[in-house]
Amino acid sequence: MLDGLFKPRAIAVIGASNNPLSIGYIVIQNLAAHGFKGPIFPINPKGGSIQSFKAFKSVLDVPDEIDLVNISVSHKLVPGVIEECGRKGIKFAIVHTAGFKEVGGDGIQREKDLVALAHRHGMRIFGPNSQGVQNSDPGISAYANFTFVPMKPGNISIVAQSGGMGEVLKAHLHNVGLGHRMYCSYGNESDLTMPEFLEYYGQDEGTRVIMMQIESFKDPAAFLDVASRITPHKPILALKGGRTREGAVAVSSHTGALVDQVAMTQAMFRRAGVLGFSDTDEMIKTAIAMSSQNPPPGRRLGIITNTGGPGVQAVDESIDRGLVLATWSDAARARLKASLYAEASVGNPVDVVATAGPDHYFAAVDTLLKEDGVDMVMVNFITAPFVDLDGIAVRIKEAASASSKPVVSVVMTIEKWAGLVRKLRESGIPVYDFPEDAARSLAHMARYDELRRRPVEAPPALDVNREAAAATVRRHEGRDAFIPQADAFALLAAYGIGVARTVAIASRDDLDRAGIAFPAVLKVDSAAVVHKSEQGGVVLGIRDAAALRAAYDALQGRFGGRGVPCVLQEQRAAGREVIIGQAACPGLGALVMFGLGGVFVEVLRDVSFAVAPLSRQEAREMMREIRGARILEGVRGEPAIDAEAVETMLCRVARLAADFPAIVEMDLNPVLAYPAGQAPVAVDARIRIR
Amino acid sequence: MLDGLFKPRAIAVIGASNNPLSIGYIVIQNLAAHGFKGPIFPINPKGGSIQSFKAFKSVLDVPDEIDLVNISVSHKLVPGVIEECGRKGIKFAIVHTAGFKEVGGDGIQREKDLVALAHRHGMRIFGPNSQGVQNSDPGISAYANFTFVPMKPGNISIVAQSGGMGEVLKAHLHNVGLGHRMYCSYGNESDLTMPEFLEYYGQDEGTRVIMMQIESFKDPAAFLDVASRITPHKPILALKGGRTREGAVAVSSHTGALVDQVAMTQAMFRRAGVLGFSDTDEMIKTAIAMSSQNPPPGRRLGIITNTGGPGVQAVDESIDRGLVLATWSDAARARLKASLYAEASVGNPVDVVATAGPDHYFAAVDTLLKEDGVDMVMVNFITAPFVDLDGIAVRIKEAASASSKPVVSVVMTIEKWAGLVRKLRESGIPVYDFPEDAARSLAHMARYDELRRRPVEAPPALDVNREAAAATVRRHEGRDAFIPQADAFALLAAYGIGVARTVAIASRDDLDRAGIAFPAVLKVDSAAVVHKSEQGGVVLGIRDAAALRAAYDALQGRFGGRGVPCVLQEQRAAGREVIIGQAACPGLGALVMFGLGGVFVEVLRDVSFAVAPLSRQEAREMMREIRGARILEGVRGEPAIDAEAVETMLCRVARLAADFPAIVEMDLNPVLAYPAGQAPVAVDARIRIR
Repeated sequence: MLDGLFKPRAIAVIGASNNPLSIGYIVIQNLAAHGFKGPIFPINPKGGSIQSFKAFKSVLDVPDEIDLVNISVSHKLVPGVIEECGRKGIKFAIVHTAGFKEVGGDGIQREKDLVALAHRHGMRIFGPNSQGVQNSDPGISAYANFTFVPMKPGNISIVAQSGGMGEVLKAHLHNVGLGHRMYCSYGNESDLTMPEFLEYYGQDEGTRVIMMQIESFKDPAAFLDVASRITPHKPILALKGGRTREGAVAVSSHTGALVDQVAMTQAMFRRAGVLGFSDTDEMIKTAIAMSSQNPPPGRRLGIITNTGGPGVQAVDESIDRGLVLATWSDAARARLKASLYAEASVGNPVDVVATAGPDHYFAAVDTLLKEDGVDMVMVNFITAPFVDLDGIAVRIKEAASASSKPVVSVVMTIEKWAGLVRKLRESGIPVYDFPEDAARSLAHMARYDELRRRPVEAPPALDVNREAAAATVRRHEGRDAFIPQADAFALLAAYGIGVARTVAIASRDDLDRAGIAFPAVLKVDSAAVVHKSEQGGVVLGIRDAAALRAAYDALQGRFGGRGVPCVLQEQRAAGREVIIGQAACPGLGALVMFGLGGVFVEVLRDVSFAVAPLSRQEAREMMREIRGARILEGVRGEPAIDAEAVETMLCRVARLAADFPAIVEMDLNPVLAYPAGQAPVAVDARIRIR
Repeated sequence: MLDGLFKPRAIAVIGASNNPLSIGYIVIQNLAAHGFKGPIFPINPKGGSIQSFKAFKSVLDVPDEIDLVNISVSHKLVPGVIEECGRKGIKFAIVHTAGFKEVGGDGIQREKDLVALAHRHGMRIFGPNSQGVQNSDPGISAYANFTFVPMKPGNISIVAQSGGMGEVLKAHLHNVGLGHRMYCSYGNESDLTMPEFLEYYGQDEGTRVIMMQIESFKDPAAFLDVASRITPHKPILALKGGRTREGAVAVSSHTGALVDQVAMTQAMFRRAGVLGFSDTDEMIKTAIAMSSQNPPPGRRLGIITNTGGPGVQAVDESIDRGLVLATWSDAARARLKASLYAEASVGNPVDVVATAGPDHYFAAVDTLLKEDGVDMVMVNFITAPFVDLDGIAVRIKEAASASSKPVVSVVMTIEKWAGLVRKLRESGIPVYDFPEDAARSLAHMARYDELRRRPVEAPPALDVNREAAAATVRRHEGRDAFIPQADAFALLAAYGIGVARTVAIASRDDLDRAGIAFPAVLKVDSAAVVHKSEQGGVVLGIRDAAALRAAYDALQGRFGGRGVPCVLQEQRAAGREVIIGQAACPGLGALVMFGLGGVFVEVLRDVSFAVAPLSRQEAREMMREIRGARILEGVRGEPAIDAEAVETMLCRVARLAADFPAIVEMDLNPVLAYPAGQAPVAVDARIRIR
């Protein structure tokens, strides 16, 4: 439990001083200015007083019990004060001080020693090189952090890896008149880690929405576990920095993290039901909407507007983001007709016209919310000088309050009528500047509702020959190399993964013994030949024994000598090419990849990722998620592929990867998928075992 | 010239009243409150005075000359007052009054009569059903409009089809402390049209940036002509509503426009060099940056930040939008090292660290701007309480002023330090709330620079047999139907468009006379069979005369009877399938489409459009612009296609479309493209002639 960290009864500030530029000074100022409910004990070797608080020379001199210390003394002094804190029985230390792992060299050991020292005293370290924590709960009011955005109560809790981005998130909530619940930016994550904060937020009743900014995962498995348990009852919105190669390098240069976490992030967010964002503003705006509105029970949006243009923008963006325009009953249309001005239009968007007043807005919002076919409502409003703005705000709120469906508003105005914006916000109706922003937030909320309600399915039970696979894996383990094709096919076959019949050909004599029916394919099978097709290492359409021998001789000639290993394979009928891949993911297990073959992967990068093992539901999602998904359903007169069979293959590959961590890479490319009733088969497979 | 409209020396307001909710009242109030430099003459049949201005019973009673009238009397009274205005010699009438074309029925004729009446007097009509115009030029200060956003001088001029969106655009400029130059929202566009306003803005020296919102084009050709002449010296930013099918319906329901203008818009914006937007906020933010900053001379961006996280967001979004991270010289790195704190990082992003002061910012901005390898600079700044904010603003501006390259800033702060934001804005440095916004604006600015500097090429001279084509077109004109395949191929061949040899087969006897070499393809050629392949109407790989006869009989059997027309075609070697299409575009001419074949078009909708005729440069752009463009360059060991030959084919198709407006639709699908030296050929072609 992190109560001592987030709900401290007393705080000591070590490194407190009267220098207003020092972290110690600012922390005390922040704590005092926000009315921390417990006593604050400045610690300074000179004693005296700091900002009217009596200063102590050491925590050991403080008469009271202390839950939390903020430490900002030089890194050389940190071990000494930690030792004292330990003897005092303090359980949590926020170490602001830099000069540890992030500077490399000695700093790495310094950090390890620090954590070991703390643990000897049963103390946990937050940081070092960290910004601190906040809890706005009026009964606590702990601003144990050296930043500047004022704190006030709210129900969005924030965890940010970058202190700068944490400040940006808080500043924006502040600027729209909202507060936040808890906050932390955890620096080096030497001891206390991000999943622990997340878990604490998940259990906090005052937290309705969790917003996180992250650049690298120290412990992906722990994050996945914690996040998966939270999202069914509380949304997690996450901004992941470093989605481009250049962005990842920028992350790396300032956090020292591994470069490529993009695929892992996508896979984890899917599994955990986390809403991922690439745009900071979009995440904040969505969090704000979710802090007061329920997620919509479906994707059907009703739009109300008082001029046409913004309605069009709302429609375009909503459709682009996967929402659906609601339609309504004749009764609803009749009520709208009867309630609105004659010039109003009663389709979707409802145009109440510029001169509409409070009762018109009430009728429009209320009518739409009461329709079964409407899951959410967006009200666009360009302020007009001649209508009763206060009344409109009151009546929109009144209609919204009678429904559990979300209502958001877009108020396009100037500071003169900022009162309407304030009034709506205070009543809990989210207010946007532009219809497109509202549409994006609603789409994310609809997605969250689907995520939290999706069936939680276990990976399917599969008949596999684990012993046979284990034997193959054992035979290659320790070399960190791609294994021969025939072994790769055998390994797949052991897990019931359909493969084209394939036999290793070590010499010309093997050709006669192979027992592969014609037409057949002969391929070189050498680690040195990576792009077999492009390098002329594959002979297709071999129709008889003579052609087979000729093909063999040709390959031997092309690849410089006798005895170049080959495989002989039955040639399968053409099918829809797909790719199934796998890659070990340190700290998490294995990722599985799905994509359409050929240029779809290589040029369009149209692939999806998930964490192994897979449930059928997840395998299905992976297949649906690629841009070219409709191709699998059959286009241009071609039949649909047997999607369930491919799903099963994905689950089997994932199971194989999960069962044998030594398999660090699999690339089944292509897999030929066929219409219903015909099993898909891998016709080429590269497997690397470490 | 529209001087009388935008620079009126005197304005009469017909329908003026002392009812503060009336349009006439509000227009007079707006004109007076903004200090219109000429006299205002309220016109009211009762005379008296309105808002301290003497009212006249008729414009004919006004002693002075009048350039412009604002009319808001009931539509029944409009013709009468127009007649009086005509007799008075007034040249421009803004008609706010609704009840014309937009209501359908009688309104349509009413509008026509109105325009005819005005023209008899040499008067031009703005509207009807319109909002009005504004000119903030301090020597004019005409707020001849009934909206509410206060007007102040600026250098962005706005033309908006939707009055509501016009208000949104102005409100946002106002909210960030900027004004606008000229504005108009033109309602029904009965007489004066959007391209005329655009042209006027183009010639106005006080207009640096043009921002437009449009939902439908009344006269696309005029827009294309005017916009093309403006963009080489002044950017046009355009928000086009209705990009989704649902959005287009929403447009249609409130403007009565044709439903699908998406392809046309893409083609026109490309030809004219207009920057297209789908997000309102993104357009406004880009316009603001362009109103004070030059476009960057290239795509290489230098980023400065005072904390790591926002730098990562800046990098990710910049790369996503096609910018490139600049690198700098050793000398620059040395200067940064010498000028910044020891903990600063001097790569890209430059991290000046949170405590950096004015001189550090100056050094960073100045160093980057002086590098040849840097085209633009983004400065991210999270306010810190302990630094000299005013000094930082001054020094950033100082460094920026010494360079012609653009500098934008991202200031992440709260209202307490709004002074920094104000100070930067006042000095002409754009300020964003989030790094992603800044990245998007810079990317648009880089694109504009490329557009304005691209070579203007005429369509190539092509050897075509216009007479032969004309004969074919004439033969089919008047039926509005797809022409037989053999004729379609002949028409293409006349314009030098490569086609597979194809002969019409009207009867079984024709098979022997056809003279097509084997292997061959036999296809039904009936307007009733649209999806030939899917319906079994194509027999491929016919190897001899017997097989040909069998195929013929089979097709006759399948399509119900004797004498179903067919074509016999030489079977071409497999190549890369592409699609070239054409569609007549009323008011503009013809559009040409390019895409990759099959699922790329049908599932991914990966196509590009341009206006016929095409220059080589435009044909090249069309090919480069599709997402799968790299496929044409050769992937997976396949050779690149002969891009120049496909370019030529695109130019020829475009020329054919431009020469014969009666050709309303062409669909060359597929065209087989081959490696260098082999001409592409169309193997299927549907052509409709009206």
